Amino acid sequence: MRNFDINEDPHRRYNPLLNEWVLVSPHRAKRPWQGQNETISTEKLPKYDPTCYLCPGNVRANGMNNPNYESSFVFENDFAAMKQDEIMYEEDIRHTFFKAQPERGISRVVCFSPRHDLTLPEMEVAGIENIIRTWQKEYTDLGSIDYINHVQIFENKGSVMGCSNPHPHGQIWAQSSLPTQVEKTQKNLKDYFIKNNRNLLQDYLKAELIKDERLVIENDHFAALVPFWAIWPYETMIISKRHITKITDFTAEEVTSYATILKQLTTKYDNLFNTSFPYSSGIHQAPTDGGAHEEWQFHMHFYPPLLRSATVKKFMVGYEMLGESQRDITPEKSAAILREQSDIHYKNK
Amino acid sequence: MRNFDINEDPHRRYNPLLNEWVLVSPHRAKRPWQGQNETISTEKLPKYDPTCYLCPGNVRANGMNNPNYESSFVFENDFAAMKQDEIMYEEDIRHTFFKAQPERGISRVVCFSPRHDLTLPEMEVAGIENIIRTWQKEYTDLGSIDYINHVQIFENKGSVMGCSNPHPHGQIWAQSSLPTQVEKTQKNLKDYFIKNNRNLLQDYLKAELIKDERLVIENDHFAALVPFWAIWPYETMIISKRHITKITDFTAEEVTSYATILKQLTTKYDNLFNTSFPYSSGIHQAPTDGGAHEEWQFHMHFYPPLLRSATVKKFMVGYEMLGESQRDITPEKSAAILREQSDIHYKNK
Ligand SMILES: O=P(O)(O)O[C@H]1O[C@H](CO)[C@@H](O)[C@H](O)[C@H]1O
Ligand SMILES: O=P(O)(O)O[C@H]1O[C@H](CO)[C@@H](O)[C@H](O)[C@H]1O
Repeated sequence: MRNFDINEDPHRRYNPLLNEWVLVSPHRAKRPWQGQNETISTEKLPKYDPTCYLCPGNVRANGMNNPNYESSFVFENDFAAMKQDEIMYEEDIRHTFFKAQPERGISRVVCFSPRHDLTLPEMEVAGIENIIRTWQKEYTDLGSIDYINHVQIFENKGSVMGCSNPHPHGQIWAQSSLPTQVEKTQKNLKDYFIKNNRNLLQDYLKAELIKDERLVIENDHFAALVPFWAIWPYETMIISKRHITKITDFTAEEVTSYATILKQLTTKYDNLFNTSFPYSSGIHQAPTDGGAHEEWQFHMHFYPPLLRSATVKKFMVGYEMLGESQRDITPEKSAAILREQSDIHYKNK
Repeated sequence: MRNFDINEDPHRRYNPLLNEWVLVSPHRAKRPWQGQNETISTEKLPKYDPTCYLCPGNVRANGMNNPNYESSFVFENDFAAMKQDEIMYEEDIRHTFFKAQPERGISRVVCFSPRHDLTLPEMEVAGIENIIRTWQKEYTDLGSIDYINHVQIFENKGSVMGCSNPHPHGQIWAQSSLPTQVEKTQKNLKDYFIKNNRNLLQDYLKAELIKDERLVIENDHFAALVPFWAIWPYETMIISKRHITKITDFTAEEVTSYATILKQLTTKYDNLFNTSFPYSSGIHQAPTDGGAHEEWQFHMHFYPPLLRSATVKKFMVGYEMLGESQRDITPEKSAAILREQSDIHYKNK
């Protein structure tokens, strides 16, 4: 019998945010790949695309014209997953198996820049600060609507993540219920807070700063790291150092620090495979239900699908869907690889 | 204020197997699609492919030769996610944030047929019966190994599901722990069993047979239906009518019924978009930890990604990863569409 070597032996790791496990198979990174390759567009994008429904001045699906916006621009999603209508219903308690309830919500699209050809890592820090201020405003405006209890800010980047337009943009889905993943996270944050009278993610970040094995970037106010329990090959999390429950609590300095770490992290991502690195990212923070939510700590998840190259992604399929998430490369290895990527974007070299 | 119309209004549905919710947006099926299209191979496959590592007689990655098998054939995965080595470790209880434990397991590949060009719907019922008997044997053999407490039988079909070889095959991952999804399901099945002294899935199936809104196929021993809480557009579940906790409890008649419903369901799937329909499927049943597990009921999940056509899939990305699964077409509509598909495979028409 050998002693457990976490860098070599198959093992499971525990995610305290979701109370779930992930299967880690370090030795499996070596297997050959004969499966599907993603296509990458190497087409150089124009600064302005007359056919793009997100570019300034152009017409959208609903016939409306975009303004000639100069920084960021927000509009209601023309094909929203939720509606604002108030709907009457009686919950039928006999319905153990057919439990449903109407859901009210608002979906918005946030254009990050008037430039069709820029992505986060290619923007100036000042431009990213502007996106953060837009997120703050939306969190406040949407969150102050009576029936809105949660505001989900996210970005799908790249066609492999279902994004249909390369114009840099994100989305906001605000709704009356806490979404499943947020509810789970809140439960675990709260349990920890009640038990320890401390914040789970602050304690976790402190432990990670001491260990220094999974850190990718650190500045005065934020750290970006590959979580110990990451499921995606190059998954990361940005956590604020100060105890901040929501984006509107940032000081002006923190806004700049956050913009800076966003630019650095996405630059490292692009440099990893010399490609516009696809991901879904999103912010987890206090719900807007009026509670104090001391248990929450502002953080942002990045879930990127690529595994081996610009064209080979990790497939979360059979075993992962039915059993448990599985990864082939250790989070420590991924963090080391990301750490050594340059902070200068490959296009500018 | 209008009354809630589950066929038209955005709503959430509750999944009692996982204790999770799904967001349903019936009106959203109408939005146009400008995003990524999957590529489909229309290439006619040969009955035997000399370069395929799964075909009879051919050489595998590890240098070994496949036998000239005539029905199904099982071998150890050359790139297994787990290993059989027994590994020593001390759990460090201070590790709230760095909790990990070695995991032992065995991965096998199950070739469904010597024919390179056949998939489940194109096989004879007798051939599918043979696969089921292979699954029974593997469940028994692997399950009887001392440290194996769970046997996950599954299939990834189609390149979009990470499958790298069209030769019909599935996998079995057997391991010492209950995978996250199975553990969650077992907890909810058990809670229901303790509370009601009845089986959750048997009660659910009875309720569905009476409602008759989401059934796709029914025979003497099994039903295939779109669960009320399905997340994938054409997700289905096969449930045994009799209370059966594991695949080895089937009578000979039930094996035939199961093979028949598998052939019918996958035929309807192929006929939906006139394509070899991709999916991940897998069996959920009692763990092999020696317990009686009366709370379990044999069932099989099908998670197919396609949404609108053979080339447009549903992307489970941003909001889905950070918030909650979301679907655009109601389960009732999906069930009706699947029900009306022919039982004769489109290639044979
Ligand atoms: O074992 P395969 O077929 O090479 O690999 C496929 O199925 C596995 C089990 O679902 C996944 O972990 C892999 O990501 C996927 O590519
Ligand atoms: O809203 P979009 O960009 O059209 O759509 C994309 O993001 C949504 C939110 O994550 C998903 O529900 C869709 O499946 C995806 O294609």
